[in-house]
Amino acid sequence: MTNDLRIVEVSPRDGLQSELLTLPTEVKLDLIQRLVACGLKHIEVTAFVRSERLPQLADADQLAVQLAPSAGVQFSALVPNEQGLERAHRAGIENIAFFTAASETFCGKNIGCSIEQSLQRYHTLQHAFRQLSNGRLRAYISCAFGCPYEGGVEPASVVDLVAKLVALGCDEIVLADTIGVATPLQVRHLARQVAGVVPAGRLALHLHDTRGQALASIYACLDLGIGAVDASVAGLGGCPYAPGATGNLATEDLVYMLEGCGVNTGIDLDGLIETGRFISAQLGRTNQSRAGIAGRRV
Amino acid sequence: MTNDLRIVEVSPRDGLQSELLTLPTEVKLDLIQRLVACGLKHIEVTAFVRSERLPQLADADQLAVQLAPSAGVQFSALVPNEQGLERAHRAGIENIAFFTAASETFCGKNIGCSIEQSLQRYHTLQHAFRQLSNGRLRAYISCAFGCPYEGGVEPASVVDLVAKLVALGCDEIVLADTIGVATPLQVRHLARQVAGVVPAGRLALHLHDTRGQALASIYACLDLGIGAVDASVAGLGGCPYAPGATGNLATEDLVYMLEGCGVNTGIDLDGLIETGRFISAQLGRTNQSRAGIAGRRV
Repeated sequence: MTNDLRIVEVSPRDGLQSELLTLPTEVKLDLIQRLVACGLKHIEVTAFVRSERLPQLADADQLAVQLAPSAGVQFSALVPNEQGLERAHRAGIENIAFFTAASETFCGKNIGCSIEQSLQRYHTLQHAFRQLSNGRLRAYISCAFGCPYEGGVEPASVVDLVAKLVALGCDEIVLADTIGVATPLQVRHLARQVAGVVPAGRLALHLHDTRGQALASIYACLDLGIGAVDASVAGLGGCPYAPGATGNLATEDLVYMLEGCGVNTGIDLDGLIETGRFISAQLGRTNQSRAGIAGRRV
Repeated sequence: MTNDLRIVEVSPRDGLQSELLTLPTEVKLDLIQRLVACGLKHIEVTAFVRSERLPQLADADQLAVQLAPSAGVQFSALVPNEQGLERAHRAGIENIAFFTAASETFCGKNIGCSIEQSLQRYHTLQHAFRQLSNGRLRAYISCAFGCPYEGGVEPASVVDLVAKLVALGCDEIVLADTIGVATPLQVRHLARQVAGVVPAGRLALHLHDTRGQALASIYACLDLGIGAVDASVAGLGGCPYAPGATGNLATEDLVYMLEGCGVNTGIDLDGLIETGRFISAQLGRTNQSRAGIAGRRV
C-alpha cells in the first residue's frame, strides 16, 4: 500500500463528455472548484477537440481561462492534435493527455488512423508540447483490456505499445478499460507485464465500472506501486457501447476503500460525497457512487 | 484461487425481505427455479419467522413445500428459534441458518436478547435440529464489521464469538457486514483472524454492497480458502440504515469476477443476468447488478 498514489479526477472531461445534458460553464467551474476544495490535486478539466465531436465540452477555451489556480493542483486537458494543443496552451493548460488505442479497429473508428499513425501523431504532438510547456504528458491506451469490435486484446500488443510510448518520452501511460470488461486478475497481470517496460510509478489505471469490477481491479494492483488511478465523482460518465450502464469508477468509492486500507489520500470524503450529490442533481441523473448514495457513515 | 468456493444465493430470503413489494409465492418459486437452472447449488429460500416481522416472507410454509427438489441443490432457510425450526422441518427444509450479532446493542434491538443469550438459544436450536435433520447449520454473525448503533466492532470479540459457535458445533460461520461499511483489508484481516479458530472452508462472507466495497473485499479474501460467499441476484435487498442504498453483493458481478479470475463456478452467467432482469421487472425496481445492466459482453 502506498501513500504516493495519485488520484486523477476525470469527471469534468470523461464524465461530462458522456452525459446527455451539456452543463453551463459556470456549473463546470463550480464542480472543479468543489473538487479542488476536497483536496483533489489532479483534475482533467476538459478536452480541446472539435465542438461537433464533443458538444458537451465545446466551452473548453472559456472554461480553461477561468480556472482559479490553486497551489499544488494540476489541471490537465485531453488534446488530440496540435490544434488542440495550441488551444490548450493559449488557455493556460500546462498538462495534456493524448489518446491512442490497443485495437486497430477501435483506433480507426475512434481516432481515424492506424495505431502506428497515432504514434506518429503523438510524436509530433509531444515535440510541439515540449516547446510550449514543462508540464506532464499522459497517453491513454483505449481498449487495453478488450475492444467493442475485436473482442479480446493481446496483452503483448499492449506491452509493445506502452514500450513505444515510453521510448517516445511519454510521462504517464494510462491503461484504459474503455468498455469495462476487465476483471481483477486480468488487470493485475497486464499491469505487472507493463511494469516491465515502464516504471510502475508512471503507470495509471482508468477503469470503467460497467460490470462492477473497477474497484476490485484497483485493489488487485495496490501492491504494484501503480502511480495513478483515474476516477470520476458520482461515477459520472457512461459506456457508449452499453446503454444505461455505469461509467467511470466513482471517486467516493475509491477514496472510501483507500482510506479503509490505510492510505492517506488527503481527500475530504464527506465533501466529495457532497460534490457528487451536487453534480448529480445538476445533471438530473442517478448518483452512481454507492458510498455517495449511502454516505460515509451509518 | 479455488474452485471449491460455494456461492450461496440469498436473494429469495435476504433480498426479498428488504423489498417494499411482497411477491406472490408463484413468482418466488419461479425465481428459485430459474436460479437452480442457472446452476446455483446453495439457495436460502425463505425465513420461518413471525409473519408480522417479515410480511414479505409470510408464505414461507407454502413456498417451501412447493420447492422442486433438484440433484445437488441445497435449499436452506433462516430460523430464529425452535418454532421456526419445526415449521422448516415440516415444510421439508433440511438446512437452516441462525443469526446472532457481534454488537450487544444490535443483538438487543434486532433479536431481543444479549449475545450470550443468543448463544444459549443457538445451543437449544442446534440440539433440536440435530434430532431432526442431517443437514447443515450456518450461523450469521451480524455487524461483524460495524454496528449502526455502536460504530466500530472489536475484531477480537468477533473471533471470540466465532470460537464459541464452533465449540457448540456450528457447521458454517457467516461474517456479515449488515450495514456495508467494511473495506477490503478489514475483511481480509478479520477473515484471517477468524481462520485461526475455524477452518476457512467453514467460513462464509456475507457483504452488503452499500458503499461499493463488497466485490473488492471478496477478491481480497480469495486466497484464504474461504468456504462460501453470499450474493443476491440483481443485488436484491437493501440497507435499512441507509435509505436508497444498494443491498447485497450482486451474484452476476461476483460470477463475472470469479470466472474472469479463472474460477469455474459452474454457473450460467447469461442465464443469471436474465434472471436478475426478470426479478427486477417483477419488483419494479432498478437492477443493482452492473454486469446485469450492461450484459456479459459488449
